[in-house]
Amino acid sequence: MNKVRIGSVGLGRLGLRHAENIANKIQNAELAALCDINEAALREQSARLGVKNYYTDFNAMIANKDIDAVFIVSPSALHTGQIAAALDAGKHVFSEKPLGTTIEECKNAEKAVMAHKDKVFMLGFMRRFDESYRYAYKKVMAGEIGKPVLFRAYSQDPEKFIEGAIAFAPHSGGEFIDMCVHDIDLARWFTGSEPQSVYAIGGCYAHPEFGKYADGDNVCALMKFKNNCMVFLFAGRTAPHGYNVETEIIGTKGILRIASVPQKNLVEVLDSGGVRRECHENFLERFENAYVLEAQQFVDCIREGRKSEVTVQDGVRVLEIAGKCKQAFETGELLKF
Amino acid sequence: MNKVRIGSVGLGRLGLRHAENIANKIQNAELAALCDINEAALREQSARLGVKNYYTDFNAMIANKDIDAVFIVSPSALHTGQIAAALDAGKHVFSEKPLGTTIEECKNAEKAVMAHKDKVFMLGFMRRFDESYRYAYKKVMAGEIGKPVLFRAYSQDPEKFIEGAIAFAPHSGGEFIDMCVHDIDLARWFTGSEPQSVYAIGGCYAHPEFGKYADGDNVCALMKFKNNCMVFLFAGRTAPHGYNVETEIIGTKGILRIASVPQKNLVEVLDSGGVRRECHENFLERFENAYVLEAQQFVDCIREGRKSEVTVQDGVRVLEIAGKCKQAFETGELLKF
Amino acid sequence: MNKVRIGSVGLGRLGLRHAENIANKIQNAELAALCDINEAALREQSARLGVKNYYTDFNAMIANKDIDAVFIVSPSALHTGQIAAALDAGKHVFSEKPLGTTIEECKNAEKAVMAHKDKVFMLGFMRRFDESYRYAYKKVMAGEIGKPVLFRAYSQDPEKFIEGAIAFAPHSGGEFIDMCVHDIDLARWFTGSEPQSVYAIGGCYAHPEFGKYADGDNVCALMKFKNNCMVFLFAGRTAPHGYNVETEIIGTKGILRIASVPQKNLVEVLDSGGVRRECHENFLERFENAYVLEAQQFVDCIREGRKSEVTVQDGVRVLEIAGKCKQAFETGELLKF
Amino acid sequence: MNKVRIGSVGLGRLGLRHAENIANKIQNAELAALCDINEAALREQSARLGVKNYYTDFNAMIANKDIDAVFIVSPSALHTGQIAAALDAGKHVFSEKPLGTTIEECKNAEKAVMAHKDKVFMLGFMRRFDESYRYAYKKVMAGEIGKPVLFRAYSQDPEKFIEGAIAFAPHSGGEFIDMCVHDIDLARWFTGSEPQSVYAIGGCYAHPEFGKYADGDNVCALMKFKNNCMVFLFAGRTAPHGYNVETEIIGTKGILRIASVPQKNLVEVLDSGGVRRECHENFLERFENAYVLEAQQFVDCIREGRKSEVTVQDGVRVLEIAGKCKQAFETGELLKF
Repeated sequence: MNKVRIGSVGLGRLGLRHAENIANKIQNAELAALCDINEAALREQSARLGVKNYYTDFNAMIANKDIDAVFIVSPSALHTGQIAAALDAGKHVFSEKPLGTTIEECKNAEKAVMAHKDKVFMLGFMRRFDESYRYAYKKVMAGEIGKPVLFRAYSQDPEKFIEGAIAFAPHSGGEFIDMCVHDIDLARWFTGSEPQSVYAIGGCYAHPEFGKYADGDNVCALMKFKNNCMVFLFAGRTAPHGYNVETEIIGTKGILRIASVPQKNLVEVLDSGGVRRECHENFLERFENAYVLEAQQFVDCIREGRKSEVTVQDGVRVLEIAGKCKQAFETGELLKF
Repeated sequence: MNKVRIGSVGLGRLGLRHAENIANKIQNAELAALCDINEAALREQSARLGVKNYYTDFNAMIANKDIDAVFIVSPSALHTGQIAAALDAGKHVFSEKPLGTTIEECKNAEKAVMAHKDKVFMLGFMRRFDESYRYAYKKVMAGEIGKPVLFRAYSQDPEKFIEGAIAFAPHSGGEFIDMCVHDIDLARWFTGSEPQSVYAIGGCYAHPEFGKYADGDNVCALMKFKNNCMVFLFAGRTAPHGYNVETEIIGTKGILRIASVPQKNLVEVLDSGGVRRECHENFLERFENAYVLEAQQFVDCIREGRKSEVTVQDGVRVLEIAGKCKQAFETGELLKF
Repeated sequence: MNKVRIGSVGLGRLGLRHAENIANKIQNAELAALCDINEAALREQSARLGVKNYYTDFNAMIANKDIDAVFIVSPSALHTGQIAAALDAGKHVFSEKPLGTTIEECKNAEKAVMAHKDKVFMLGFMRRFDESYRYAYKKVMAGEIGKPVLFRAYSQDPEKFIEGAIAFAPHSGGEFIDMCVHDIDLARWFTGSEPQSVYAIGGCYAHPEFGKYADGDNVCALMKFKNNCMVFLFAGRTAPHGYNVETEIIGTKGILRIASVPQKNLVEVLDSGGVRRECHENFLERFENAYVLEAQQFVDCIREGRKSEVTVQDGVRVLEIAGKCKQAFETGELLKF
Repeated sequence: MNKVRIGSVGLGRLGLRHAENIANKIQNAELAALCDINEAALREQSARLGVKNYYTDFNAMIANKDIDAVFIVSPSALHTGQIAAALDAGKHVFSEKPLGTTIEECKNAEKAVMAHKDKVFMLGFMRRFDESYRYAYKKVMAGEIGKPVLFRAYSQDPEKFIEGAIAFAPHSGGEFIDMCVHDIDLARWFTGSEPQSVYAIGGCYAHPEFGKYADGDNVCALMKFKNNCMVFLFAGRTAPHGYNVETEIIGTKGILRIASVPQKNLVEVLDSGGVRRECHENFLERFENAYVLEAQQFVDCIREGRKSEVTVQDGVRVLEIAGKCKQAFETGELLKF
């Protein structure tokens, strides 16, 4: 099979990164088209990345017969509509998380994907492609840590990006939906199980602005999973040290910690601060390779007629769980699944 | 004032350690008497530590006018009775945790302490005397981490001592009362606040034996404190790597982690296992210095007419909270305080 | 300019890696030809990587007008001859280290490069392209650590590959030339200075086989540089924990350590070995990204008419220094440069 | 035997610490006398520590029949004279390092000790009593790291105490004699071998003041030991991060690193500096317990009629080696032992 020709919609920070990866780093792929409503950015990036076809209209892009697949990196509220349209137009689809902003949207996306089983659909839970997570996953699957006892996950954004977070608050869906979805996906992936109950607390410790949206700047949830594994999630937007995504899986025979020090690289600095490691700035830096490996798998699946590892059902289920966490947080009640 | 003459009851592992510390390491103190029902051990240790007065009967010991203070390191169910008797006999009292095994017992102890305000009473929450906890505490009090957001505490005993834990299960009161009391004390100490609600889960992941006592081998609790701080406690008896007591305090401006690697000492080993730190074996090793500093404070308080940092109310309150955690665990319900 | 068409000679482990990178990961490059004396491997890899032109004769490959540049990853003794021939044939040249096996060879290579100043020549000191080394380098250049005081570098191969090292011993040139060249390059790069004197010791601590070649299984050298910086190099072939390349730069105002724990990834394992990090296996794993970035710079230099960061003079100078270290080791004398 | 009655001379920082330890922490010992030329300090500390006998004249102190042993913590130039006098007066002697300031002095001390074999003599190489060094030592003796290949030791004083170091420079004997003696002792202890050759370099990187005394602010030495072990010592006075005493022993089967992060305690701080460990301030903080254990051994040896682990010959030999390092540094030559 020839190169997979990809059209990508959305030129925000992550959309641009995906476009660059497809253009430069993904084997057997070609960045064939770009789409964005910002025409200036569209022209600039198309020129820079050598893309001949560019569109301000998503439907126009998917009408192009020379495009095999689309990357959807548009605002979350557009995801499910674009997924269905692209599949109907005969394209393979990669969509960024979240799958949709409501369960209903997600269910519609699921129907669309089910109606086009010959097409590859993949959801962007890139952490599964990070080499450290994969390494840990293999150990867990090999039984090296025994039975899972506690799954603990932190997702913390740096305080220094708080203004952006506040500006985005009305659209983010709240921390559980915006940030914890990755951890919920990992919890399901690592434990192979589903939640039974959830209690969630938190609040606005530094930034009351989030309160307007029934959200907090730091929140957590404790869930009991069906296999009895305890799952503790913490998400925060005020990390003083950097972008901190940290996961611990305590098993009966061993414990794995992934990125317990969110070190940027292998340099250790000894100065008046003591002995220290500088930290990752953001998700693009921390998951640089994971984004490449994820896109590569998408392309490989298309070429090899395989299904992707991350399914539409994962997206639906994760959003259901995140929504329940959010509801638990808002009501202060213990909820059952 | 002359040396404080101390009589100590209980010659189990920790009782023996306290006796040795008093005999050898505590300034201005004298190990004046020992008490235990095991007469052979009593004679042996009295000889070894140069103690002339030894008793198999606690009441006989406290009748000795030459004793100023007692250390109570007997089985938990005896604590409150001995506390009251010793205070009534005019002695200062140090009692190991837990204060008692029921709230009623604890309230009685509280009454006894209140009735003898001229005597020093101290409860053995030794972690507060560990240099790392004290260092962290000073930073928190100095405002270096801002407002507390999440307090996370792990207390894990090594799997290799599981047989002892199983044998002790009928008397331990369960993990919340046996193990989490220290973390509950730390949570109150560091946050200066009290719990409002608790949800607790866990189970028998490796050792069904604990199920007989409505206990688990690994449990956790998520509490909301009145100052809105999230408090997550995890206790386990199956740690593969050693004795792991770890605390994290996430604040709005900084984060502190105490003993996130429970390293035995400063030696790093590079061998076929990679780059590794060997871990503490047990609480006596981890808190060796804390036990000394705690006993020293008790003696200093007596000599200087001061109150100890850890009060009988701390003991009552901690047991109430641990009991509520246990009830939450047993019922599966969200409980309010 | 169109894609740079590259012919690569040598299909050993590293040669294959370079070929794969050029074929798959380097932008604006094309793997246009392969060359190796092992015809079976040549055919197999050419097919696998989609390379149409393959040669068992290097001269035949460089006679191909459709090739713009060559990668030389052949046995070290062939490097300088192939460099000169390729340059004479009008090709840009990337050569793996060492530049040559004797100073005379290196000088010939230097002459060839000087005679073809319109061509890009680059030597494979890939560590300079590792993100951690680059990050440290920027800090040093920015003056963050003040004046360099001590440069310490370790290069250790794992004991588990000792059989290969013994088999390769007759051809390796010894540890200083085979392993320390990278550290010598880094020392010159970081300090911007050159050695004045050297004392070198070591021996066969575990494997007497190296003695036959006047080499050791572990050696070290202490050099005084002209700017007075102390430079300590240690190279070993018996590392119990993995592939350990570690560098420390002590300055008057700060200290940087690069990879003081040669951790494979961000996973920390807590098990009966304590708290541990598993280590890198070999240079291909440790410097995976550096090999890509290095090749990318070579291609970019060609396309943009720039000189590469690593020059032929670096290669000559590093070999001179390594040779002097070797001589110091063999004679036991303090040598001046 | 009754308590060992100790008279201590010298009330500088370390002398005071020893006095406090003897008064408060050493079992079976009594601080019976103090001696210092500063009468005000002498009176103050004697009162504070409850010492009834105090002297401004060392000979007066050792004439006191009620004193069994002396601690010599006076200026280095006085050590050997006081050692001989005290032994002649029938006292057991503990002397701080260095044994003396010249080889001749040391030889005299050795003679004095040899002439009083019934007395315990101990030299203050306290690092041997640090629990991490002892733990490492046991592993080495048990063969866990195989044959020693490289012994690397750093002793770095913090830049923030540089003024004191400059003031003390005329009397320090230089970094090799003042600082490296501990590392030389450790090298001999861990390897069980003696040096054959030494090359030493360094200089004044930040503080030219040391040049007046033919010393540097940072120096190093590379020695070949008779068992072929490579020994690399580095000493510096400009550490930006704190007091850094770090040792690595690379063996054919394993590697041990002691205090590769000179962390003050178990607290990890996550803030704008990244993830960091604060460091020890000085030797009194780092070796707090070692000083106690060392003094305890001295007392135990006296009571049990044993020899101490650290002998006068260790002191002589270490000073000879340090002197040779110094000579190598001053001449720039490779020296043989």
